[in-house]
Amino acid sequence: MHAAVLTARDLERRLSAEFPEMFEKDSGLAIVEVWHGGCRVRQGFQQDSLRPGGTISGGTMMLLADVAMYVAVLASIGWVPLAVTTNLNINFLNKPQPGALIAECRLLKLGKRLAVGDIAIRSEGEETIVAHATSTYSIPPRTEVA
Amino acid sequence: MHAAVLTARDLERRLSAEFPEMFEKDSGLAIVEVWHGGCRVRQGFQQDSLRPGGTISGGTMMLLADVAMYVAVLASIGWVPLAVTTNLNINFLNKPQPGALIAECRLLKLGKRLAVGDIAIRSEGEETIVAHATSTYSIPPRTEVA
Amino acid sequence: MHAAVLTARDLERRLSAEFPEMFEKDSGLAIVEVWHGGCRVRQGFQQDSLRPGGTISGGTMMLLADVAMYVAVLASIGWVPLAVTTNLNINFLNKPQPGALIAECRLLKLGKRLAVGDIAIRSEGEETIVAHATSTYSIPPRTEVA
Amino acid sequence: MHAAVLTARDLERRLSAEFPEMFEKDSGLAIVEVWHGGCRVRQGFQQDSLRPGGTISGGTMMLLADVAMYVAVLASIGWVPLAVTTNLNINFLNKPQPGALIAECRLLKLGKRLAVGDIAIRSEGEETIVAHATSTYSIPPRTEVA
Repeated sequence: MHAAVLTARDLERRLSAEFPEMFEKDSGLAIVEVWHGGCRVRQGFQQDSLRPGGTISGGTMMLLADVAMYVAVLASIGWVPLAVTTNLNINFLNKPQPGALIAECRLLKLGKRLAVGDIAIRSEGEETIVAHATSTYSIPPRTEVA
Repeated sequence: MHAAVLTARDLERRLSAEFPEMFEKDSGLAIVEVWHGGCRVRQGFQQDSLRPGGTISGGTMMLLADVAMYVAVLASIGWVPLAVTTNLNINFLNKPQPGALIAECRLLKLGKRLAVGDIAIRSEGEETIVAHATSTYSIPPRTEVA
Repeated sequence: MHAAVLTARDLERRLSAEFPEMFEKDSGLAIVEVWHGGCRVRQGFQQDSLRPGGTISGGTMMLLADVAMYVAVLASIGWVPLAVTTNLNINFLNKPQPGALIAECRLLKLGKRLAVGDIAIRSEGEETIVAHATSTYSIPPRTEVA
Repeated sequence: MHAAVLTARDLERRLSAEFPEMFEKDSGLAIVEVWHGGCRVRQGFQQDSLRPGGTISGGTMMLLADVAMYVAVLASIGWVPLAVTTNLNINFLNKPQPGALIAECRLLKLGKRLAVGDIAIRSEGEETIVAHATSTYSIPPRTEVA
């Protein structure tokens, strides 16, 4: 496991500054761990993400998968804020109980133009995968990265 | 074009009551039109969905696609709040300018257990598709629908 | 509807020469029509694509979707044999009866680096969509195209 | 790792009998190993699956992913020939060299009505993933399985 180019704290600070929608104070998102080629991101439980039947909304899991992929890409190639998702495919497998979610992202490919990863989402402390996504990011040509 | 089972106003009122996360007063979401097998949903522009480069976040478009699919299913089969997404696949094609988005959903299949649809998202008033999704909903066994 | 860069006959001749696996004499594939941004491709019925229950194999439909996307890309940008699929997502909606299939592909985006399209597959002469796919092709940098 | 319900040899024999298209003598397909919840399937190199540039066709990998998912489902729930793919999503990551391919399938969910799995395809003896798929199978109601 190679070290990430950016630490979890670096990433949180920058993302909070540039993406207040995603990383606002009350969003409940936290980067647990990053490494070259992957990361773990935690979504704390939010009352307003409940759905009828006592489960967590699919939208919450889609956003978490997208954030985890973005964090894994940035942790591996450095700060490239114009990297954008081109595709996300998500399967909802089991209804999570109300509680925190952990997304673990693993990059399957890290090319010059495209990064592809998969993301498994579990309820914190559980083995069962509640949602599984694959995602592609397009990486813009870079003159410098930080 | 057959009539929907529920009107746009019915759906908005029920969704606001049961999914305050999605249909809260300030969400900017509005159901423009529903019919048997499809719908159009509008996402008004929200300052906090901007991303660097002056475009709208992918997360905003994912949530809009998911809502449009849900509205199309409910408009066609009636109020089944436990219908859940099992799969969503989205391609981001062109960066939308800041402004309102229109999602048009068309059900490709409406079976007893599964509904499958595609969703085209455009900037309001434009022809170009900015994102395109396909989605599958699982429909629970019903004893009665309203 | 703009004219295609290559005609259906041009494409069939070239594809037969370079992709004998896909366009061999007995494959049953034929390009029905091409235009700038799309095409229709026909898969004649093949006895060995039957599956138990008297329907046509999913594999047959996947290959047909992939070919239709490739034909639509080539018809629109010219002969670029190194264009490659990067993603294909297919939903199987209804079991087709034994018989010929028609795939209609429509490019949703035709960029410099990526083309994205959707493909609807129907039994010949029928309205019902039996399978629906979306696909992304990566287009290599070109110095010349023919 | 729990034992499979059917052995690799059982499965090959039955699949050859019922799906001559997929498992004919010259197809080059072989089931390497099965267990409860997954399998490994090998696609021997076939001259006619070459594409320009000396790589293996995407179609070959799509069919292999679909077969591996089917084998994993049957190995886990028993012989249910009417189980059908409802969705397959595949990302092509790296061009494989001409040679045999190994697909490893892992079921992420094995429910009563739906099974969802992911499939990693590698060149035999290599670590790099050349294609990655996720797939959903619909499982028909069963009165008995063998």
